[in-house]
Amino acid sequence: MVSRKKIIREILEKYRVIWSLRLAGSLMGWDQETYMPPKGVTERSIAGSNLAVLRHQLILKPDFVELVEKASRKRSLNDVERGIVRVLKRAIDQARKIPPEHIAEFSKTTTLALEYWKKAKAEDNYDIFKPYLAKIVELSRKTAEYLGYKKHPLDALLDLYEEGLTTDDVDSMFSRLEPGLKRVYDKIMAEHPVPEKHPLEQTKYNVESMKKLNRKALDVLGYPWDRARLDVSAHPFTIGIGINDVRITTRYEGFDFKRSLLGTIHEFGHALYELGVDQRFIATPIAGGVSLGVHESQSRFWENQIGRSKPFVTAFYPHMKRYLVFLRNYTPEDVYLYFNTVRPSLIRTEADEVTYNFHIMLRYKLEKMLIEGSLSVDELPEVWNQEMERLLGVRPRNYSEGVLQDIHWSMGSIGYFPTYSIGTLLSAQIMRRIKQDIPNVEEDISRLRFRRIQRWLRENIHRYGSMYPPKELVRKALGTDLDPEVYVSYLEEKYLSR
Amino acid sequence: MVSRKKIIREILEKYRVIWSLRLAGSLMGWDQETYMPPKGVTERSIAGSNLAVLRHQLILKPDFVELVEKASRKRSLNDVERGIVRVLKRAIDQARKIPPEHIAEFSKTTTLALEYWKKAKAEDNYDIFKPYLAKIVELSRKTAEYLGYKKHPLDALLDLYEEGLTTDDVDSMFSRLEPGLKRVYDKIMAEHPVPEKHPLEQTKYNVESMKKLNRKALDVLGYPWDRARLDVSAHPFTIGIGINDVRITTRYEGFDFKRSLLGTIHEFGHALYELGVDQRFIATPIAGGVSLGVHESQSRFWENQIGRSKPFVTAFYPHMKRYLVFLRNYTPEDVYLYFNTVRPSLIRTEADEVTYNFHIMLRYKLEKMLIEGSLSVDELPEVWNQEMERLLGVRPRNYSEGVLQDIHWSMGSIGYFPTYSIGTLLSAQIMRRIKQDIPNVEEDISRLRFRRIQRWLRENIHRYGSMYPPKELVRKALGTDLDPEVYVSYLEEKYLSR
Repeated sequence: MVSRKKIIREILEKYRVIWSLRLAGSLMGWDQETYMPPKGVTERSIAGSNLAVLRHQLILKPDFVELVEKASRKRSLNDVERGIVRVLKRAIDQARKIPPEHIAEFSKTTTLALEYWKKAKAEDNYDIFKPYLAKIVELSRKTAEYLGYKKHPLDALLDLYEEGLTTDDVDSMFSRLEPGLKRVYDKIMAEHPVPEKHPLEQTKYNVESMKKLNRKALDVLGYPWDRARLDVSAHPFTIGIGINDVRITTRYEGFDFKRSLLGTIHEFGHALYELGVDQRFIATPIAGGVSLGVHESQSRFWENQIGRSKPFVTAFYPHMKRYLVFLRNYTPEDVYLYFNTVRPSLIRTEADEVTYNFHIMLRYKLEKMLIEGSLSVDELPEVWNQEMERLLGVRPRNYSEGVLQDIHWSMGSIGYFPTYSIGTLLSAQIMRRIKQDIPNVEEDISRLRFRRIQRWLRENIHRYGSMYPPKELVRKALGTDLDPEVYVSYLEEKYLSR
Repeated sequence: MVSRKKIIREILEKYRVIWSLRLAGSLMGWDQETYMPPKGVTERSIAGSNLAVLRHQLILKPDFVELVEKASRKRSLNDVERGIVRVLKRAIDQARKIPPEHIAEFSKTTTLALEYWKKAKAEDNYDIFKPYLAKIVELSRKTAEYLGYKKHPLDALLDLYEEGLTTDDVDSMFSRLEPGLKRVYDKIMAEHPVPEKHPLEQTKYNVESMKKLNRKALDVLGYPWDRARLDVSAHPFTIGIGINDVRITTRYEGFDFKRSLLGTIHEFGHALYELGVDQRFIATPIAGGVSLGVHESQSRFWENQIGRSKPFVTAFYPHMKRYLVFLRNYTPEDVYLYFNTVRPSLIRTEADEVTYNFHIMLRYKLEKMLIEGSLSVDELPEVWNQEMERLLGVRPRNYSEGVLQDIHWSMGSIGYFPTYSIGTLLSAQIMRRIKQDIPNVEEDISRLRFRRIQRWLRENIHRYGSMYPPKELVRKALGTDLDPEVYVSYLEEKYLSR
């Protein structure tokens, strides 16, 4: 009988080629959003889809599959080995079920769709994007059929982003969240009528100064520049090209500086997760964050729990004032209020901590309907607008403020949005747990010292990479499951006692 | 019998995966030299070598090899098909002959050699590099044995960079070039004694202004920014990621601005070649420049025949003065002289049009002796210095000015240097031919209008990609073979009638 160790070693050796293709694919994706000349897109999409097919073939190579199956039958696997086998079995299972032609078609479609979404958004013309969205919905439904599901076709897609997540989970999460959220939101609206716009939202900044401020923020947070980058892209994102090559992007719209700053801090949270994975996991299947929900818990933690907190805003205020001279006319308290203005907004990425989850509920509801076929892409913009009115009482005046605002569907990511809520809710639970585990942690934040917090995150979450499935990791780290009530309490405490 | 068209179509379909891996590899190489965080290098090199092995395996896959062989037996191939088959047969042949273990050993040796070459150069200590150079010579000789050759082992290596090139070709080229070059050089030295340093060589520039000037130069030359990029790297290079995604780099040393400007124009020439390949060749084996010599003819054409010409310097002078204010103290004529100062120099990359080829002759002579075993790495530095004295009358005072100056041998590139001379000589022949074909072409240059010149280059050279082997392409484009006398006449006319 071949030893457990030998099998795992062989698996990892063969996997290294697949990992190499993933690394190349990640770099190609990063480059496409940052530096690729626009006309490079055709060749890029040919290469992207060919390499995706190649990866697919390598994952399904009989000798590889057999090794993974052999390993999965071993009883004595340790946690790392079990993680490796679990992740690979999932990948093999998915690859087996989805035909390569479907993957190639999907990849080619989304590469084009992304370009046409950009064009459609720039010209505020939904019709430019509509046929590509229709195609993506159709292909995604096919994906769900290929993957199989017990109850709802969206279940199959949810699982792609958040292992084990079902529409039942999401429905339950939102049904537990909505009443509390609505209660808090209504109270805030009643207690604190907010101005239509905070003056700082309209204040223009100098882009070069803002770039320096973002770099300063990353310095203060301890971003390791020798292992990481910050660049500019239309839609901010984080990508782990390797454990020691993680890249975030931000954008500079020229006004409303919190969007660029908090966006950068948000991506920093994602990056820190990828950077914190155990170095021994390099080139293995578990060398990266386990799921989008857990990932978002990290970005939201730094953006909301740290970045929008009073101790952070107060302590970081002098740096902000140094780079953005107009802040001389504002106190730290003003900036704190500006960072935490609650009001109904049209754009998800500009939404505050209270209204944000309403935006996700809307998207989840619509993509569920799109996938089950109870809503067409023709009806979509109007239903979007109706839902906005129902949930937040506001109505988009154009497509860019409505259905065209997000990049996700154009990239073929249907079933992705709920992970934003999962992460947002988890981030409050993580902070609650950190406050229990680290004495006087607020003092750390007031002194802009993040070492103890980062060590907690690394020890309890980051270092494991994808070793444990998300629900298990959450239970391990927090001693409890996802709990929407904690988030509602957090909002009540922050917004109703001030 | 399977039709010719069907076989070619099948070949191209299979090749697309190899092409995709090449695209990924090119992007990874570009990124490593421009934006990769330094600590990303370990994971990058694991991925790079894994993907290189994968490509090697795909090229040698029996069904692919069989298809190519089948196609090569067809009599009725058109020029494009013949080109595709020729390039693939070469790739298969090389991949077959060199054992993977040899490639791995070579790659490991050069990775180390590069590091020790850097150290040796920094410390001016040849002994640090010597054992690695000895190993590289030994392994290169082995490569030659694996590949096979008729007359001289260096023939096998020359062919890697310039298809069909032999030591007989290079010996003949240099023996025809040397007397004329020596005559011109001696005359110039007698007629125009030059100062040790031109004052502009020491003049410092503002890097931001220089960046703007380089962009302006590329604007003027018609660089298609929607299909191409300019970035910064330690060693300037051009890389064709696709026909519609070509990237050049330059560097900013902060002084002697012609190095950055002419370097940028040089890389522009390389880029224009890649950008001009027939769009129908996308994702095929012939979608790129055919050889290093022909490539260098394009970079040298723009750097020397255009960039160092009087009409260009005169016409571009106002732009230079706008960005580099110190040029107010210099006339266009001053700048022209600064761009064309001839003097014996020790460093190849700083050499002028007249002395440049002496540097190549020296390197070629020595690498030929090293490979045939008539010169040892122990004797190398002294023989280098003797040759410098013989050819240019100057003697390096240390290793860094002598045998340690170039990166090439440390990277295992033996047989590469002659392509620099081939390109330099061809560039003068191309200009002569363009002057015959395009009436009043000098007026175009004086007006900074390059459309007719670019069309000529595209029609006669670029569009063919690697369709024809280099010698055939040259004959087709120029109606003649490589002719060193043309270069000598060019120098005589430029430097002796002024």
